[in-house]
Amino acid sequence: MHEECGIFGLFALEGMAAPLVYQGLFALQHRGQESCGIASNNLGQVQVYKDMGLVGEVFSEAVLDRLQGPVAIGHVRYATTGESCRENAQPLLSRYSKGVLSLAHNGNLTNTCALRQMLEQRGAIFQTTIDSEIIAYLIARHRASCDSVEEAIARSMAQIRGAYSLLVMSRGKLMAVRDPLGIRPLCLGRINDSIVISSESCALDAVGATWIRDVEPGEIVIVDRHGIRSLRTHCGQMVRHCIFEYIYFARPDSHMDGVSVLASRLAAGKLLARQHPVEADLVFGVPDSGTDAALGYSMASGIQYGKGLVKNNYVGRTFIKPTQQQREAAVRIKLNPVRENLAGRKVVMVDDSIVRGTTSKHIVHMIKAAGATEVHVRISAPPFLWPCYFGTDIPSQDELTARCHTLDEIRRNIGADSLGFLALDSLNDILGTTGHPYCDACFSGQYPLDVLQGAMPGADERT
Amino acid sequence: MHEECGIFGLFALEGMAAPLVYQGLFALQHRGQESCGIASNNLGQVQVYKDMGLVGEVFSEAVLDRLQGPVAIGHVRYATTGESCRENAQPLLSRYSKGVLSLAHNGNLTNTCALRQMLEQRGAIFQTTIDSEIIAYLIARHRASCDSVEEAIARSMAQIRGAYSLLVMSRGKLMAVRDPLGIRPLCLGRINDSIVISSESCALDAVGATWIRDVEPGEIVIVDRHGIRSLRTHCGQMVRHCIFEYIYFARPDSHMDGVSVLASRLAAGKLLARQHPVEADLVFGVPDSGTDAALGYSMASGIQYGKGLVKNNYVGRTFIKPTQQQREAAVRIKLNPVRENLAGRKVVMVDDSIVRGTTSKHIVHMIKAAGATEVHVRISAPPFLWPCYFGTDIPSQDELTARCHTLDEIRRNIGADSLGFLALDSLNDILGTTGHPYCDACFSGQYPLDVLQGAMPGADERT
Amino acid sequence: MHEECGIFGLFALEGMAAPLVYQGLFALQHRGQESCGIASNNLGQVQVYKDMGLVGEVFSEAVLDRLQGPVAIGHVRYATTGESCRENAQPLLSRYSKGVLSLAHNGNLTNTCALRQMLEQRGAIFQTTIDSEIIAYLIARHRASCDSVEEAIARSMAQIRGAYSLLVMSRGKLMAVRDPLGIRPLCLGRINDSIVISSESCALDAVGATWIRDVEPGEIVIVDRHGIRSLRTHCGQMVRHCIFEYIYFARPDSHMDGVSVLASRLAAGKLLARQHPVEADLVFGVPDSGTDAALGYSMASGIQYGKGLVKNNYVGRTFIKPTQQQREAAVRIKLNPVRENLAGRKVVMVDDSIVRGTTSKHIVHMIKAAGATEVHVRISAPPFLWPCYFGTDIPSQDELTARCHTLDEIRRNIGADSLGFLALDSLNDILGTTGHPYCDACFSGQYPLDVLQGAMPGADERT
Amino acid sequence: MHEECGIFGLFALEGMAAPLVYQGLFALQHRGQESCGIASNNLGQVQVYKDMGLVGEVFSEAVLDRLQGPVAIGHVRYATTGESCRENAQPLLSRYSKGVLSLAHNGNLTNTCALRQMLEQRGAIFQTTIDSEIIAYLIARHRASCDSVEEAIARSMAQIRGAYSLLVMSRGKLMAVRDPLGIRPLCLGRINDSIVISSESCALDAVGATWIRDVEPGEIVIVDRHGIRSLRTHCGQMVRHCIFEYIYFARPDSHMDGVSVLASRLAAGKLLARQHPVEADLVFGVPDSGTDAALGYSMASGIQYGKGLVKNNYVGRTFIKPTQQQREAAVRIKLNPVRENLAGRKVVMVDDSIVRGTTSKHIVHMIKAAGATEVHVRISAPPFLWPCYFGTDIPSQDELTARCHTLDEIRRNIGADSLGFLALDSLNDILGTTGHPYCDACFSGQYPLDVLQGAMPGADERT
Repeated sequence: MHEECGIFGLFALEGMAAPLVYQGLFALQHRGQESCGIASNNLGQVQVYKDMGLVGEVFSEAVLDRLQGPVAIGHVRYATTGESCRENAQPLLSRYSKGVLSLAHNGNLTNTCALRQMLEQRGAIFQTTIDSEIIAYLIARHRASCDSVEEAIARSMAQIRGAYSLLVMSRGKLMAVRDPLGIRPLCLGRINDSIVISSESCALDAVGATWIRDVEPGEIVIVDRHGIRSLRTHCGQMVRHCIFEYIYFARPDSHMDGVSVLASRLAAGKLLARQHPVEADLVFGVPDSGTDAALGYSMASGIQYGKGLVKNNYVGRTFIKPTQQQREAAVRIKLNPVRENLAGRKVVMVDDSIVRGTTSKHIVHMIKAAGATEVHVRISAPPFLWPCYFGTDIPSQDELTARCHTLDEIRRNIGADSLGFLALDSLNDILGTTGHPYCDACFSGQYPLDVLQGAMPGADERT
Repeated sequence: MHEECGIFGLFALEGMAAPLVYQGLFALQHRGQESCGIASNNLGQVQVYKDMGLVGEVFSEAVLDRLQGPVAIGHVRYATTGESCRENAQPLLSRYSKGVLSLAHNGNLTNTCALRQMLEQRGAIFQTTIDSEIIAYLIARHRASCDSVEEAIARSMAQIRGAYSLLVMSRGKLMAVRDPLGIRPLCLGRINDSIVISSESCALDAVGATWIRDVEPGEIVIVDRHGIRSLRTHCGQMVRHCIFEYIYFARPDSHMDGVSVLASRLAAGKLLARQHPVEADLVFGVPDSGTDAALGYSMASGIQYGKGLVKNNYVGRTFIKPTQQQREAAVRIKLNPVRENLAGRKVVMVDDSIVRGTTSKHIVHMIKAAGATEVHVRISAPPFLWPCYFGTDIPSQDELTARCHTLDEIRRNIGADSLGFLALDSLNDILGTTGHPYCDACFSGQYPLDVLQGAMPGADERT
Repeated sequence: MHEECGIFGLFALEGMAAPLVYQGLFALQHRGQESCGIASNNLGQVQVYKDMGLVGEVFSEAVLDRLQGPVAIGHVRYATTGESCRENAQPLLSRYSKGVLSLAHNGNLTNTCALRQMLEQRGAIFQTTIDSEIIAYLIARHRASCDSVEEAIARSMAQIRGAYSLLVMSRGKLMAVRDPLGIRPLCLGRINDSIVISSESCALDAVGATWIRDVEPGEIVIVDRHGIRSLRTHCGQMVRHCIFEYIYFARPDSHMDGVSVLASRLAAGKLLARQHPVEADLVFGVPDSGTDAALGYSMASGIQYGKGLVKNNYVGRTFIKPTQQQREAAVRIKLNPVRENLAGRKVVMVDDSIVRGTTSKHIVHMIKAAGATEVHVRISAPPFLWPCYFGTDIPSQDELTARCHTLDEIRRNIGADSLGFLALDSLNDILGTTGHPYCDACFSGQYPLDVLQGAMPGADERT
Repeated sequence: MHEECGIFGLFALEGMAAPLVYQGLFALQHRGQESCGIASNNLGQVQVYKDMGLVGEVFSEAVLDRLQGPVAIGHVRYATTGESCRENAQPLLSRYSKGVLSLAHNGNLTNTCALRQMLEQRGAIFQTTIDSEIIAYLIARHRASCDSVEEAIARSMAQIRGAYSLLVMSRGKLMAVRDPLGIRPLCLGRINDSIVISSESCALDAVGATWIRDVEPGEIVIVDRHGIRSLRTHCGQMVRHCIFEYIYFARPDSHMDGVSVLASRLAAGKLLARQHPVEADLVFGVPDSGTDAALGYSMASGIQYGKGLVKNNYVGRTFIKPTQQQREAAVRIKLNPVRENLAGRKVVMVDDSIVRGTTSKHIVHMIKAAGATEVHVRISAPPFLWPCYFGTDIPSQDELTARCHTLDEIRRNIGADSLGFLALDSLNDILGTTGHPYCDACFSGQYPLDVLQGAMPGADERT
């Protein structure tokens, strides 16, 4: 599963913004590892550099030196489809009647087809296959009859549906935009006189910035040399934060919309312990995603927390997969059981999800081969049952094991002695607050807006 | 001086077009060494690959394998401005209401600013700074109210001014377009059942194709599975082939619009010998551009032809320039005088141009240091005096030595014993035909259309 | 601090050894990230590939395909000196009178200079600056008057002093050699009919091999088509395993010479808790090296274990260091405090070492800035006071903060509320056995052999 | 056919030598395109950089900056065997009792096996498969009992047989060595106070140096801070310059051992015209190697010289060969006939050799397809019949068409109307002097020393 993107922007009055954006993108790398880019703005002179690869691979000192100017935005991306090409990397630069507009976008629109059709009928041509180009077009069109870019953005927001956290950089302004549902996160920070905008708060920390607040669902934050102000035309509608950001995507040291990610994972682990208790000698997490919930499980159950698996951090995208022993070998190189802790013990293994079930099966097999007498698998989320239309790349439903099998079938398939998922109706409890509205459609099928309507080509268009 | 581009396309009914386009681009590499690209069309599935670098550097077997389909177009480019970036590489892909349009363009429009403004006012956004994106927009707009792409192209041609040889690839067609002046070359060939289109005939030879004919000035050639046909709406206007293609740009083994490039260079050399005769022991050309005219000079004058300079073919873009002895050292590494042939001799040195005069000065100095007693410089073209608006990158007028100095000043500056340029009024004679209409504006200042009108932003627009 | 190397070898009778060695090296990557290489043996045809870079960067499928043969050895390396160049990468290939000898070496000789001098006086030339070339020479010389390579190795062992775990691959044999002190680890495993030799047992797991036993100090293990046998000429001498392998170098999932690395770290944490108790709300480790001891501290003290810092795994060798805010910024990008867990709390922070003190200072500062009211630093090892001559790259003594400052000065310098190191005389307890002989010279200054004697040029030579 | 190497060295008292060596290697690139390297000497501190690739690809400004010091040697290489690997690139660095010795070698020893065996029996190990390592060993061994490096070199020369032009760089000296036969060229030049040594004089020109003289066969030239001196122990023996350097390898602007390469090629062309006259309309050379002899043919025969083929300089090592139409297509992309000059004409085509005959066949076919009515092929050398043991990579005798077929069979095979080779007994005439002793063994089978004796393993050794 992949989240599609992370965005980071900085507005200063002087100095160079790109080096700090570069640092910020490092802290957001977990949100997208396929391509990345930075666009900088030096009094209207815009430079962009983007390519396939990790932040550390794409940017050299020489490249950063070319990205002059006190304002810059950056982007990391994970493509959801086969369309993983250099052309689709962001930020996207658009030259239009009022100058150059740079865009960085995290999220997924649901009425793309309809909007694209409408624009094409009016003579638009598209050079990429990304949503962001549609947003740029809409803004450019509205700008002609508007007094400001922010108004053009507001009018464009009336047309687009779905999830979007946006950075828009014009000649003299940096704008942060969040969809009315508030699905993807976006927050503001300050470092000296500079304003920083980031998908997650961990990237504010990485550049030494102080967190100010989250961008509100539906809000347009405008930063320019006069300071910060907001346009809230689209605020106050139904809000639905993506629950999966807390369970899976975000870094544990981030807090979003008032909730600490780490705290929500510990809470999930504690709930799991209550919902699916078991007698065991050790509880451990599948690194890195399951360790926090495992600690929560330990805290609530009193079972000793420890290390059951060691992860090899060097096995990355360049690893050549073994051909014969295939998948199991690949898992073994990435994760190694700690015999010391497993031999002759009953263990609880916590992970954040079971998608196809194959990896879980290999891991459980390894744990047992290392001598564990019982392996109890606990998943810190409900089972995946539905597709996500807001930017999470969940496999097709045929591949989702929870869609095709009963709980017991899954348990037997992965070879666990018991298996427990977090209860759907307890999701709210992991957010630690009452009244934090969230989207759990991937678990519940309850979508916050009629996604199918706009997701079909030609279905919907309101101009 | 640089020519901006070379284009090459192939239409077949089956098989893979990209490998032959790759070979064709190798033969056109002299027309652009900065970036290159190929777009292929597999029943509407379009793949493109383009990057900075030479054809041999950009394309690997793996990349070519991805470019599936029986139709493909390719492009080599030399950027005229500082805007040499990956984004501006071609072919340009545009997704519009009727599918995907791929464009490869050689030439330079003169009313770019006006057209861009007009399009931006109607909501267009531009992701590149190349003319081709404007052409793509115009075609996309007209396509909405036209029955066919070719008609949309014809209507677009009514709006654009300047020099353009174009390849346009749509779902089922490959179109070759040439501006009404016929400034840049374009020709058709056949290889078995496939149709080939190329900037120069030498690339037809390279892929084993047979030359059919040149595309006519103003003609739109449409190739599809029913064969070849033409739209000649814009034919029959004033024709002006670029004389500089014959003197400088094109490969000697090409023939364009009925004239052999090699023959025209031999003719220029012969004319030079008659216009600027001298007593000498040896005539040689500055390799590679001056050798053909030097042979012509030898043939007409009876002076022995020989090798005066050896060129080092390995000194390319990657050569690290010496810092101290600077330019002279750089020239010395690239060109080495052949003492054997020069010592104690009176020599005639033929080159195709003097731009700033610096290189000529260094070469003459080397020739004399090698022992030549007299060096008579002959240039197989008139002096450069005017800018080109059709895609030749001539330095600014301040830098043109012929613009600032008398003939005798130039001669003294470069250290020659005598200096002769080809007479402006004899240019027609090098084309070997009466009635071959050509543009010699860079020498004469006589532009074939009111270039200044459209070259100024906002000046002209006729929709 | 760096360990210099990791080695991995595989002997099979058929099939391809290189892919498994490649996988094994991934598991040993933590032992050396600067260069790596693999040499394969196909019935005496030896191929080698080595370069600067990580295993995943250096090896591609095409390269692995060239490394044919059922026997192969591999090496990962971290250079201790400025001599980090491609020439020094291993395995080292030597063509000598009996064929080709391939060597992979982990460790550091102490009488290099004397041996080099002796060999040079007899006409030897050296193409690298690594110890391994000296070993290769000695073996080659002795081979002339010996019946077998293993005997030549045994004779060479009589001449070399210091730490070495070696893999030697000859035409038909693979030999594993360990110095008489047993300083660096080396163990044997089996996968089907193949014998595997590895620096650490975690790499046996990675390729699916079963651990057989450790190579004995002083032992030469010979693997050929007749099976495994040993030459124990140098066994039975004083044994001293490097204690730092347990505390720092090795992966927690490895066990070496009968001791589990993870267990020894948990034990160190427990001892720390007893030796330096404190009242606190949370104990956490500096990731990744301090987390295991932190858990031990938690277990012995009853203080809640948790996550105090999140590590960014993407910040690697390519990260461009910030210029201005310098070191502190670099630390901040790599490690981020988890406010949630720290604000308003008294915390215990466990790390495995304090070298210069600078990094610790920055981390403590961050922890306090995140709101911790008290920070108690605990180090799971005694203070560094002495240089290592056996392959650990400890900074010069002037830079070692423990060498220049009192405990209280260090505490104040790093800004901790209290500071405790593991007691030197309790080191034995972390190995969980009585009678496990170890080298703790870096802490105690008690070197297991007269290292200075041979470490000086010209001092010692016994042929 | 390939020559194996080119070498270039510079000795100055101050400043940086590497940039000029870099320039010199560019001028020698035609002598080896597979790997290259430079070693610099800064008061005994030796740095080396070498890799596979062209000079322009291997060296960057950053790399050159690391090669500090006023003395440096460089090397370009073309491997003759499959052993084309990074390890075999030169210069070769050897650390021995007296410091560091750097070697660059052009040529081929004939008693390699015997010497290698002898050295191995005395304990030597070899890390490369190149002759140069043997030479380094011999020098190192003799150095122990000699007063100077040059004496050690002289003693080594007594042991080695074959062709070698050598550069040897020690702590304070640069030595140039040429084998007693003088097979490979080597010359001295001066640039201000610096001494330059180069395989060919064209590289002296490239760095702005003045030619002093050729190194004598058998001479050791020693350059140090006291100036230049010579050791002539091995001079005065039988001298045999390689005739193929003049016909094929060297650049036309070089002169070697008193003979201009260009002049010798013109002379060969003139001789050809007399030995194989024919009635024709045009004579042209196969570029680039045949053009000079073609001009000579024209001068002697009175037939008009012109351009029959245009060569594409961009088709280099990276070109992906067409798979289907194979070889002919590859030739067509590299060479294109100039129809203008060929159609309806009788032509003489001059080339420097026919090896397998395949390429000649394709070219003649193209020439005829372009309309030539008769094609008369003239080769400016005798037919290849014998292998070369001195560094020229001639295909095995089975592949040599002249070895297997009569003159008429070859003519018919390549499709020529007539075919003429230069007469063996007229080779002396192309050198333009009486008494210039040369080796023509590849044509005549008359080897200048009993090469078979030493070329066989174990045959000969005189210590």
